[in-house]
Amino acid sequence: MSKQFDVLVIGGGPGGYIAAIRAAQLGFNVACCESNAYADPKGEPRLGGTCLNVGCIPSKALLHTSHLFEESGHSFAEQGICVGTPTIDVARMIGRKEGIVKQLTSGIKGLFKKNKVTLLNGHGAFVGRKESAESEVWQIRVGDVLVEARQIIVATGSKARHLPGVPVDNEIVCDNIGALDLNAVPKRLAVIGAGVIGLEMGSVWRRLGSEVTILEALPEFLSVTDIDVAKEAAKVFAKQGLKIITGIEIGDVKISQKGVSIDYTGRDGSEQKLDADRLIVSIGRIPNTDGLDADKVGLKLTERGQIEVDAQCRTNLPGVWAVGDVVAGPMLAHKAMEEGVMVAEIMAGQSGHCNHETIPWVIYTSPEIAWVGKTEQQLKAEGVAYKAGRIPFAANGRALGMGEPNGFVKMLACATTDRILGVHIIGANASELISEGVVAMEFGAAAEDLARICHAHPTLSEVVHEAALACDKRPLHF
Amino acid sequence: MSKQFDVLVIGGGPGGYIAAIRAAQLGFNVACCESNAYADPKGEPRLGGTCLNVGCIPSKALLHTSHLFEESGHSFAEQGICVGTPTIDVARMIGRKEGIVKQLTSGIKGLFKKNKVTLLNGHGAFVGRKESAESEVWQIRVGDVLVEARQIIVATGSKARHLPGVPVDNEIVCDNIGALDLNAVPKRLAVIGAGVIGLEMGSVWRRLGSEVTILEALPEFLSVTDIDVAKEAAKVFAKQGLKIITGIEIGDVKISQKGVSIDYTGRDGSEQKLDADRLIVSIGRIPNTDGLDADKVGLKLTERGQIEVDAQCRTNLPGVWAVGDVVAGPMLAHKAMEEGVMVAEIMAGQSGHCNHETIPWVIYTSPEIAWVGKTEQQLKAEGVAYKAGRIPFAANGRALGMGEPNGFVKMLACATTDRILGVHIIGANASELISEGVVAMEFGAAAEDLARICHAHPTLSEVVHEAALACDKRPLHF
Repeated sequence: MSKQFDVLVIGGGPGGYIAAIRAAQLGFNVACCESNAYADPKGEPRLGGTCLNVGCIPSKALLHTSHLFEESGHSFAEQGICVGTPTIDVARMIGRKEGIVKQLTSGIKGLFKKNKVTLLNGHGAFVGRKESAESEVWQIRVGDVLVEARQIIVATGSKARHLPGVPVDNEIVCDNIGALDLNAVPKRLAVIGAGVIGLEMGSVWRRLGSEVTILEALPEFLSVTDIDVAKEAAKVFAKQGLKIITGIEIGDVKISQKGVSIDYTGRDGSEQKLDADRLIVSIGRIPNTDGLDADKVGLKLTERGQIEVDAQCRTNLPGVWAVGDVVAGPMLAHKAMEEGVMVAEIMAGQSGHCNHETIPWVIYTSPEIAWVGKTEQQLKAEGVAYKAGRIPFAANGRALGMGEPNGFVKMLACATTDRILGVHIIGANASELISEGVVAMEFGAAAEDLARICHAHPTLSEVVHEAALACDKRPLHF
Repeated sequence: MSKQFDVLVIGGGPGGYIAAIRAAQLGFNVACCESNAYADPKGEPRLGGTCLNVGCIPSKALLHTSHLFEESGHSFAEQGICVGTPTIDVARMIGRKEGIVKQLTSGIKGLFKKNKVTLLNGHGAFVGRKESAESEVWQIRVGDVLVEARQIIVATGSKARHLPGVPVDNEIVCDNIGALDLNAVPKRLAVIGAGVIGLEMGSVWRRLGSEVTILEALPEFLSVTDIDVAKEAAKVFAKQGLKIITGIEIGDVKISQKGVSIDYTGRDGSEQKLDADRLIVSIGRIPNTDGLDADKVGLKLTERGQIEVDAQCRTNLPGVWAVGDVVAGPMLAHKAMEEGVMVAEIMAGQSGHCNHETIPWVIYTSPEIAWVGKTEQQLKAEGVAYKAGRIPFAANGRALGMGEPNGFVKMLACATTDRILGVHIIGANASELISEGVVAMEFGAAAEDLARICHAHPTLSEVVHEAALACDKRPLHF
């Protein structure tokens, strides 16, 4: 038995499901295969990939609950809200998160139906290419079925990198999957890796009562963010009680039924030991190419194990594309979606594009961190002459009303043209505030453009406005 | 004794203090007079006007606290956060609000010092114009001092309109001032006027436990907003228990020490009566021209009592400008600020401008309401061919994580050019989400432009993105 489609998308995460939907909208007969069953009781494939099932979405649900939990224990009293000492029902919190995930994964199935995308249950693996006068198609095995399609989009995503010799059981030692499903608040939680996932999950469990220590091998904290943002984040997180130790080298990790014991070498060369009840390993992610049989058809990978693609996400094989975490670039759901749309539109003869220079980044800590464009250290390294405008949230009425005075907006603009080169935000709702920065940069806006645009009062977005004014050294509220 | 300045700004609210600061930045010798003592114990003028002292800022502080109070009583349980039944310490809540107001009003004094603006204590009143070979100056009496300045900016703001024959004591019968300072949660709260202030203050006290009834004379609810937004708001507010009765006519209002009794005629002509413990009157605001002695110098007012100005905020008198609530246009702080900056820049020979077409509006209810540009009913009335894209928050992962599935984003674009004509949001954080709509409209963006701009995942701003896609009938997540 075989099935024919115009397009087969391998993987139903953000890059894959969006590519499938967009391709179907453009008139292609599209299938998308997904083998990921996660927690579905019937073993049905759950769409949405890592992001929706064990990443962005469930973490945001836990971050929301844990934020309110912390507020209720801390800021409520000064606001006049009298409640007893709050306690957390972890099972209920996790259950609510599961409900949201389930609703959204089913939602994508609904979108597939609406857009007439065929969902195939199973892992996709290359079989070969069938070339004849009438047809040139790729053959892909999906479970027991041989699927033929003229175009293939590989969107297999990524998985957590583990520590060599430290098996992840998602009970005592967790990656992103187990970190979202702890059945109780651990007394002591160790996190290895102070990246996005480590900081977010460390924040969730710290707010709920864990004593959290994050070990980071890199010498600098959050070196991917603007240097001032990283400094402010380190300061605020330390005040919150999140212990972050950088420049360490992990040694032996001993696991027992009761917990873990981590030997590490400190920045000063001293031998240290960290005992904890649970360990979250968040040291990066690796592209998923297992079981794809890439080698069978000569699909070229990079040295880092990603599928090699050009700027339009074409692989070295005709009619084979790849998008999202499995190719180079930031492992962000919205970057994968942009690439998915681009590929579908190029396949349809349109001018699909993906501007990698304006992909926003977000870290959902408290305060949130978000940015787009170049950091100050990047501009320095590139020798670009720039000016900077930096305004704290502490002078903003909305931020004070919310009890969120931490952080700032920092705008970087070209010293000669005034064009905005980067917007860096650490503060409440940074995740939402960054969108006007992205829009402005897509329009090639000057800092003065944003400075001359009316911002509603009182909003946090006024701090973006003031940062733009500050690029010209004329803030009105600072 | 007299004092000379280049510019005298009459009134230290958002329009006035911003005009003063910007004029000072541009090299003028500037004074700003303010007589408003509000609650300052030393009788010092408090800068910031209605907005900062008894408007936007204190209301947002109370809205924040009351929102958390409501969450703690409602959504906490389903999230697994266990607290006892919450109670509210009104004095403490009000005290925190006062602290924020005090911090920000002092902040503006600091900005005056930094920018070398002279603050004069007293009400400003026109005396006359002194013209001679060397100087042409306006003379203004500020308290006991005669001030001379070549240019005058009137920024005297507005005050609450009261009901004829119903004196406001800000104990039993309150306007915006008393509504922010109730010393206890009234059991039954009546509000006359379902505009921004009525809805916001009604929401605060309802969340804290009041039984709130809002009476509105207009036949339609929230006719200033897009028709679909008004419908959704009516639905959500009703579910929250906010009782809103439109199309009524207020009759006798009897006030006793224990409360009020309001006779009104219902939409169907029936005689009705509403008893309440407190009454908030929020039936609009009137421009402040009292004591300005406008007639003494021939400063022209409109029929509605506003100071008449042209598009650059020039009055009929040479060198006299007026900005903010005292002139025509929406009574919004950020509109006043834009006008203040414009006037200062024009005085300095720059090309100051204020685009009244892109002034965003916000109502800080829950969900929040925000919009910019034209409503659907306006476009219909103007005969403009348009297309609409409307996407609910219920399909958005961030909204679900926050437990905020209500509302939608509706984008209106020109049917022929695709240019965005209006963005209408009812939903969580609408106040912040609107800023990308304003920026897009200032750049003359097409809906397709926003549709092709990457939005961070998971954020509420993705709903704006989808609404842009929906204008072209190709949403990806709906």
